[in-house]
Amino acid sequence: MKVSALLTSAGINIGICALLLCLYSILRKQPGNAHVYFGRRLARDNYQRRDPFIYERLVPSISWILKAWVSTENDIMADAGLDSVVFLRLLVFSIRIFSIAAVICMFLVLPLNYFGQEMEHKHIPKESLEVFTIENVKQGSEWLWAHCLALYIISISACVLLYFEYKRIAKLRLVHITRSPSNLSHFAILVRAIPWSLEEPFTVSVKNFFMKYHASSYLSHQMVYRTGKIEKIMKDAKKIYKKLVYLTPACMDQKYRASRVRCGLCGGTSTSFHLYSNELQLAEKKPGLDHLDSLKEKECPAAFVFFKTRYAAVIASQVLQTSNPMLWVTDLAPEPDDVKWSNLWIPYKQLWLRRIATLLASIVFMFLFLIPVTFVQGLSQLEQLQQMFPFLRSILRKAFVSQVVTGYLPSVVLLLFLYTVPPMMMVFSTVEGSISRSSRKKSTCVKVLYFTIWNVFFVNVLSGSAISQLNLISSPKGIPTQLAKAVPRQANFFITYVLTSGWVSLSSEVVQVFALVWSLSIRYILRQEEDTTWVPSFPYHTEVPRILLFGLIGFTCSILAPLIVPFLLIYFLLAYVVYRNQIINVYYPKYETGGQYWPIMHNTTIFSLVLAQIIALGVFGIKESPVASGFTIPLVILTLLFNEYCRQRFHPIFQSYSAQDLIELDRQDEASGRMEEIHGQVLLAYRQPIGAATEDTNIAVSESSCSSQESVGGVTPPTRTLSLSRLQAAFTWLSMLITLQDRNQPHH
Amino acid sequence: MKVSALLTSAGINIGICALLLCLYSILRKQPGNAHVYFGRRLARDNYQRRDPFIYERLVPSISWILKAWVSTENDIMADAGLDSVVFLRLLVFSIRIFSIAAVICMFLVLPLNYFGQEMEHKHIPKESLEVFTIENVKQGSEWLWAHCLALYIISISACVLLYFEYKRIAKLRLVHITRSPSNLSHFAILVRAIPWSLEEPFTVSVKNFFMKYHASSYLSHQMVYRTGKIEKIMKDAKKIYKKLVYLTPACMDQKYRASRVRCGLCGGTSTSFHLYSNELQLAEKKPGLDHLDSLKEKECPAAFVFFKTRYAAVIASQVLQTSNPMLWVTDLAPEPDDVKWSNLWIPYKQLWLRRIATLLASIVFMFLFLIPVTFVQGLSQLEQLQQMFPFLRSILRKAFVSQVVTGYLPSVVLLLFLYTVPPMMMVFSTVEGSISRSSRKKSTCVKVLYFTIWNVFFVNVLSGSAISQLNLISSPKGIPTQLAKAVPRQANFFITYVLTSGWVSLSSEVVQVFALVWSLSIRYILRQEEDTTWVPSFPYHTEVPRILLFGLIGFTCSILAPLIVPFLLIYFLLAYVVYRNQIINVYYPKYETGGQYWPIMHNTTIFSLVLAQIIALGVFGIKESPVASGFTIPLVILTLLFNEYCRQRFHPIFQSYSAQDLIELDRQDEASGRMEEIHGQVLLAYRQPIGAATEDTNIAVSESSCSSQESVGGVTPPTRTLSLSRLQAAFTWLSMLITLQDRNQPHH
Repeated sequence: MKVSALLTSAGINIGICALLLCLYSILRKQPGNAHVYFGRRLARDNYQRRDPFIYERLVPSISWILKAWVSTENDIMADAGLDSVVFLRLLVFSIRIFSIAAVICMFLVLPLNYFGQEMEHKHIPKESLEVFTIENVKQGSEWLWAHCLALYIISISACVLLYFEYKRIAKLRLVHITRSPSNLSHFAILVRAIPWSLEEPFTVSVKNFFMKYHASSYLSHQMVYRTGKIEKIMKDAKKIYKKLVYLTPACMDQKYRASRVRCGLCGGTSTSFHLYSNELQLAEKKPGLDHLDSLKEKECPAAFVFFKTRYAAVIASQVLQTSNPMLWVTDLAPEPDDVKWSNLWIPYKQLWLRRIATLLASIVFMFLFLIPVTFVQGLSQLEQLQQMFPFLRSILRKAFVSQVVTGYLPSVVLLLFLYTVPPMMMVFSTVEGSISRSSRKKSTCVKVLYFTIWNVFFVNVLSGSAISQLNLISSPKGIPTQLAKAVPRQANFFITYVLTSGWVSLSSEVVQVFALVWSLSIRYILRQEEDTTWVPSFPYHTEVPRILLFGLIGFTCSILAPLIVPFLLIYFLLAYVVYRNQIINVYYPKYETGGQYWPIMHNTTIFSLVLAQIIALGVFGIKESPVASGFTIPLVILTLLFNEYCRQRFHPIFQSYSAQDLIELDRQDEASGRMEEIHGQVLLAYRQPIGAATEDTNIAVSESSCSSQESVGGVTPPTRTLSLSRLQAAFTWLSMLITLQDRNQPHH
Repeated sequence: MKVSALLTSAGINIGICALLLCLYSILRKQPGNAHVYFGRRLARDNYQRRDPFIYERLVPSISWILKAWVSTENDIMADAGLDSVVFLRLLVFSIRIFSIAAVICMFLVLPLNYFGQEMEHKHIPKESLEVFTIENVKQGSEWLWAHCLALYIISISACVLLYFEYKRIAKLRLVHITRSPSNLSHFAILVRAIPWSLEEPFTVSVKNFFMKYHASSYLSHQMVYRTGKIEKIMKDAKKIYKKLVYLTPACMDQKYRASRVRCGLCGGTSTSFHLYSNELQLAEKKPGLDHLDSLKEKECPAAFVFFKTRYAAVIASQVLQTSNPMLWVTDLAPEPDDVKWSNLWIPYKQLWLRRIATLLASIVFMFLFLIPVTFVQGLSQLEQLQQMFPFLRSILRKAFVSQVVTGYLPSVVLLLFLYTVPPMMMVFSTVEGSISRSSRKKSTCVKVLYFTIWNVFFVNVLSGSAISQLNLISSPKGIPTQLAKAVPRQANFFITYVLTSGWVSLSSEVVQVFALVWSLSIRYILRQEEDTTWVPSFPYHTEVPRILLFGLIGFTCSILAPLIVPFLLIYFLLAYVVYRNQIINVYYPKYETGGQYWPIMHNTTIFSLVLAQIIALGVFGIKESPVASGFTIPLVILTLLFNEYCRQRFHPIFQSYSAQDLIELDRQDEASGRMEEIHGQVLLAYRQPIGAATEDTNIAVSESSCSSQESVGGVTPPTRTLSLSRLQAAFTWLSMLITLQDRNQPHH
């Protein structure tokens, strides 16, 4: 690929980006799209719609960029949670480290590469991109120490920045724990694998066990009930019918009619929920009900147990309960909104098998994916394509076509394939049996991350440089040399990948193509008001791996092919603005991990650094520079030691809560007299919604919540989430469509 | 190697064994050797020496074998601790599984191998041993399914037996915990990395911290003090001088004179110990003493903290104390006798670095060891030896010499080299910073195990089959094929290894060669009474890896070269008798891990099984039997799943105590009113002996304990151990020799 081809590619992408960003700045001013672009704000500010006539509607502007800069980190943390802040910190870290890398690479490494060999340079646009990579430096050149120096500066800066980020995020996590006194999950644990006994139901066993061994701190408990899928669909259908026949006309007059209709689809309006409450408490009040008998049958060997203090709960969750580790298994409870109910009734004994099965399935999926990727990567080498399809030869000879094919097509095709991965991994994570939606998302994030790094980076590097060279796994000794040969050659592909997958996906993210099309089709084709209560969560499981992949590409290519760094830097800057905007305006987090994404990010960055160092080692070996090789080895060791130090110093904080903090919190609450109130809330918080049976794996789309406005004891109760599988939704949605449209027609 | 050579080797070894066992049965009857052969009994029965004139002294007998059978498992557990029982259970497991393997191999596999090819069989003694291995089965033979069946039977029996052993040992561990109510370590935790503050000494910090966050259960604490080496040697020298000048004549009249002298060498008699007691308590009684000022200076940021209940201690040891995981690090305290005092004052921040450094050092040591082993293995291939040393050609042509050289010499040389390994690994484990002597021994055991498996099994297999073939690590794909080719060829070496390293080392173990020579030289050359108070601990770190190595050899060779199984079975039977005898009579455990060796044994056995299956897979591949290969793969998967199940089901029990058991124990003690008494004992138990500075790495020899007979509150106080470095001991011992001999002479 030549510089001109790169410029063509960059031109196309800059054009698309500019177009989409302009489109966004116009679309966001249309009041009809408010739900698409300001879903979060609408949800937060209790549905107060902005006045749409202040701005000129049809003139593109950059005011949104400025607005995205304004809000501070504390605001974002308070509004959007710690996970969002952690995600933005990753972007800040990336911007910082690649600014440093850009300066060093452009002013130190790039000139050395360009003048690395005594050759006659052409006019720059006709120059091959290889001239700018380390391949152009001649064997045994004395200037390789400069590359080594650049590597040292980048690695050390990265470690220093990582350390301060880790420290900062650890502090933020502490603030997150201590400043959220209403976090009821701190008082609860999840008990699974309650032993079955003939004499007494599970709920009595739980009470007896905790009264016996945790008598001083045990407060109460809440059993988990099994609700079958078919039962649930039947109930849903009944309720939907009732709503449609009786309730809809009444709802029409109210402001939030659409919300009620949506809720009806899910299983009822916000006031029509039937919540299972503590079976014991119910039994005391209304003995002998048929309802209760059916509940008893459906009791699962799992329960939420509530404690009087946070410290007692954390102890109960960490200590081995009995001498059989497969019974009375305790974990800290997820937050009420975060509970993945349908996974709670998986028998605990299955879980280890499920984990192994999904691990194997993920690995198989990872390797089967090789087939399309290998084929796609063949496209970047025109000669091979021409050999395979001789009839294309005449078309491919045209300069523009060949530039598009080599520079653009491969990464677009790859991108399309990659869109199938996160849903697939989400299915695996659901089957795995995560007890919370946030941990499911985190687990998906890790799977997608491994997948992306393997299939986008390694397979591209190896299959792209010489197709069918897939014996990497079987000969680990040659890895550094193999990678050192392959990575500089694939630099062109990575540059175009940054342009297409990076820049364009950011623009399409900000325009929210899918949500926009969905919203438009509902409003103008189906002629119905859309559901404004549903706001998506931030898709960490797709965005975190993407950012980390670009980091990996950046670190590994910076020394070898420094031309990529400016493009990456622009990507990260754009990403910072776009994601900040999206976090403030679009996504509304209903659950979060409390910063647990950071250790993943940290470890991946360290992996990228070490990989970059190993590749550099290979390159120095090939270029016959023993001094540079010799100096790189201690750098690898130091980086690994640094990682180990961080693991020792910070990682435990992200796995557990510290006794000191929890005891202080408990004492504050006891001193202020809030404890009683919290105990009252915690008993109500973990009520199981009937419709909790089937949540879909397709992330945000399925997560519909209906918040009720009633308050118990002066405090707003936690949002009761009611999720519906996407397939089911589509099914019922289609079947009810005609009825609804007939009813709605007269009102418009 | 031919059958006759094998018989020669077996003959030599049987002769040596028989000789040594006869020698043992005579030597043990000599009253002078009572300390060598009945150290444990003497120590247990309060030094009541057996009447030496009951038995005929000079006739060899097998009565000791019968006696070893008599005592039950419960007796051994009560007397010698759980670790001894676990060790014996490993032997029982080995005997059981190799009995099954022997039946299958001798009656199913061996005939198939022998008649595997249509060939003219020679007279059996002249038959090559290769005829009995799987190499003799012809390509694509249909009889390979029988080998596959044998593999299935052995693997499944092994898993079933392992499961029941694990279950049984888990139960025993539970009994061990609940039936040792006087185990004071359950009430104590070790706190390290106490933050340093200008205002207050560590002891005040500890008190404040635990009074603040564990007020309801905190009982007291005991700081750890730093005692320097030079300071300690000076003190020792002073005391030795005092003892020798003033005390020795008085001691001469008493019964245990030698004991006192020995104690004098270590630092004082049993009544002359100066123990550091709780600094706070002392400060209250005698403020302003110079002694205390010096103590303050030497205070370490580590302390033992005592709690009112076992449950509280276990909680405090498991919960993260503060939001900085590098401060206030808590662990369950080791038992008082088990504490490795000199490691407690290592700054906690160093520990992770030390761990990495020792890991690297162990790996380097493992690989440097290759050099002598590779050379030694060359000896088993006579042609190479003759090429290297042409002048040996005439000698090596003699049949007997060549048989000795090929069959015997290599394993003897290897054995001698291997004797240097455990002390080296013990040094590494000491540097690593284990807080207890038992965990140091366990860590050494793991290191020696890896070392042995790598250097005895893998390197022999690979270097023996074709010298300089050491690129195993760099090409993992070919491992099964490589091993499948190499293992049957090395079967001869392994058979002789079992004979020499196995049988003969057992015989020398029972005779206690080193201890005997030491005892004889003290009594007859130095003409002094030996120290009867010192009794060795069981050397798990050398014996466990040895047994496990023989298991590994057995599993991997059983199908391929079935001739080895009977020899192994005899080894295990002999080992069972010998070790039972030694545990009952010789070794006296002063500390133990509570069965934590079992998970190591279990994992290693699973590793051996899987390795055997992978090698079989390779062999079936080479022999072109796709059916057998196909059936072996599910077996590998099932074995790994079984291991994962055991890990889930049993492993947590070996890592921690369960809340249920501890709470029950606490309640029993509270109900019976013993709690107060225990609290009194626990405060006294963790007093730090002054001489705790330098313990040698040379295991048992350095572990000299002087038990005092005074009792506090009606209960025998824990033995106060006073260890002395071996070098130091030798130094002082030599310098005092002449003085002592002069004084002792008149009494004899």
